[in-house]
Amino acid sequence: MTVFEKFLQGDLRALSKIISYIEDRNDGYRALLGKLYPKTGSAFRIGITGPPGAGKSTLVNALIHQFLEDGKKVGIVAVDPTSPFTGGSLLGDRVRMHEFGTDGSVYFRSMATRGASGGLASSTGNTTVALDAFGFDIIIIETVGVGQVELDIMDACDSVVVALVPESGDAVQAMKAGLMEIADIFVINKADRPGADRLLSNLKQMLETRKQTEGQWYIPVVDTVATEKKNIDLLHRRIAEHAAYARSNGFFEQKRKRQISKKIMAVLKSRFEKEFLDRLDSEVDFEQLIEEIYRGDANPYDVAEDLFAKFARS
Amino acid sequence: MTVFEKFLQGDLRALSKIISYIEDRNDGYRALLGKLYPKTGSAFRIGITGPPGAGKSTLVNALIHQFLEDGKKVGIVAVDPTSPFTGGSLLGDRVRMHEFGTDGSVYFRSMATRGASGGLASSTGNTTVALDAFGFDIIIIETVGVGQVELDIMDACDSVVVALVPESGDAVQAMKAGLMEIADIFVINKADRPGADRLLSNLKQMLETRKQTEGQWYIPVVDTVATEKKNIDLLHRRIAEHAAYARSNGFFEQKRKRQISKKIMAVLKSRFEKEFLDRLDSEVDFEQLIEEIYRGDANPYDVAEDLFAKFARS
Repeated sequence: MTVFEKFLQGDLRALSKIISYIEDRNDGYRALLGKLYPKTGSAFRIGITGPPGAGKSTLVNALIHQFLEDGKKVGIVAVDPTSPFTGGSLLGDRVRMHEFGTDGSVYFRSMATRGASGGLASSTGNTTVALDAFGFDIIIIETVGVGQVELDIMDACDSVVVALVPESGDAVQAMKAGLMEIADIFVINKADRPGADRLLSNLKQMLETRKQTEGQWYIPVVDTVATEKKNIDLLHRRIAEHAAYARSNGFFEQKRKRQISKKIMAVLKSRFEKEFLDRLDSEVDFEQLIEEIYRGDANPYDVAEDLFAKFARS
Repeated sequence: MTVFEKFLQGDLRALSKIISYIEDRNDGYRALLGKLYPKTGSAFRIGITGPPGAGKSTLVNALIHQFLEDGKKVGIVAVDPTSPFTGGSLLGDRVRMHEFGTDGSVYFRSMATRGASGGLASSTGNTTVALDAFGFDIIIIETVGVGQVELDIMDACDSVVVALVPESGDAVQAMKAGLMEIADIFVINKADRPGADRLLSNLKQMLETRKQTEGQWYIPVVDTVATEKKNIDLLHRRIAEHAAYARSNGFFEQKRKRQISKKIMAVLKSRFEKEFLDRLDSEVDFEQLIEEIYRGDANPYDVAEDLFAKFARS
């Protein structure tokens, strides 16, 4: 039996192999994604982001139990592109899996990176395609921070939860950072700590003064203590409400279509880039051009313009 | 007199205007960069990166005084792409400028971003072109973290200083994070705190066990207390040593040429991308394709492949 056939039969090891194959961008990985694609569309993708130390792992683990009670199968992708300066506190798959059974209702996958790797957002998206096709009902994508990569990742989710802690700063900072624009739900975790009440009322107040258009989603704030499972049920309910909202008002469809468009563009760009590099390699004495620029006889901007003119018109 | 003429005469306001013009990518900004380029090549670019709270601002300010004593003019670019989750503690230009005179020997520029903006590394590089052309002898580029953007930025520097603090973790973590690969010099700042000695010996030991090739730069570790200016003179000397080393062994030239190559490729890619988007816009019913994919009648990977074939061969 091929790995793909095993995958279709629900073999978890085949799932892991297929994710690795796609992640490594081995030959034909896009064709493989094309084969997986028709089987996708039923999973709901929840993004959870927040600063290091916000207790995201504990929060996610607590949420998983809620979804398991619903009889859902849950796949988790943990992304930490910014270690070690941010603390890099995501636990390994195995440690976190420990809390759950091995019956296949929960599956963890870490996106192992060291900052240097490109295409992280795209790899994360591809992994969710595999998890969706495999049959997970809920896919949770966990990231640290709000750099460009994290924003791209969150953009590929259906609901985005931004987790803060009392130490994260105040609501004004959150607004300045553009968190209002990505969050569908705010969580203030470790809400038993000093400053939690202030941040909560602060944040609620700021959200209330936002201009609301007719029928717009009203971003809720949930205060949790994930270690004690406090208000995790409430967070779970808010996520369900947002999912229902998004599906009912066309927002879900709109977002998915935007994601499809982005995916096509991303694939096209990388294809063109490769094609172009091949031509450059065979048709231009690049070393010579660089030498001229280094000596001060040319500048990179005009050289690029000349190369573009040469290629674009041939 | 035009802004460019004023720039050539050393007018700081003209410099600020030109940097803004380039940063905003206004019409013809690449041609402007092309005009600036022949005037560059004399500045030495020092990158300083490290976790939030490592005291980079204080470290940089103390270093500036050392360079001023050498009679150098110093331009500083402060980049913080990851606020607010990382703390976003870079001080504003004006606050930091306060410590220095207004005779034009020191110039601060913050790269204002909110995580969402792309092209940050490229904007930072373009700003250093303007500072170099303006006549600064030393350009210091200050970033937080080691995400992809920060790595790209550091890659465009001649010497890279990685600043750690006793709280940053141990040497093994630093190695795992790939810091050994980007650092030319390590600093342990706030070295009067507990744990500093251990990190220092730890890091030195790890660096000693690295495989050295003949004539390779030996990465030094400097323990500083920037607030008390302790060992800042030593750090200043180590940077000068690395500069001399890089220039003497061809490493400097090699790195600069790699940077030129990257710059050409970056410009070309963005030109091709625009060309391609224009064609897509006018020749393909993109909405229709997305609709088909959303309905499940097609998948984005095959659609992209078809579009590529259509465009690449026409």
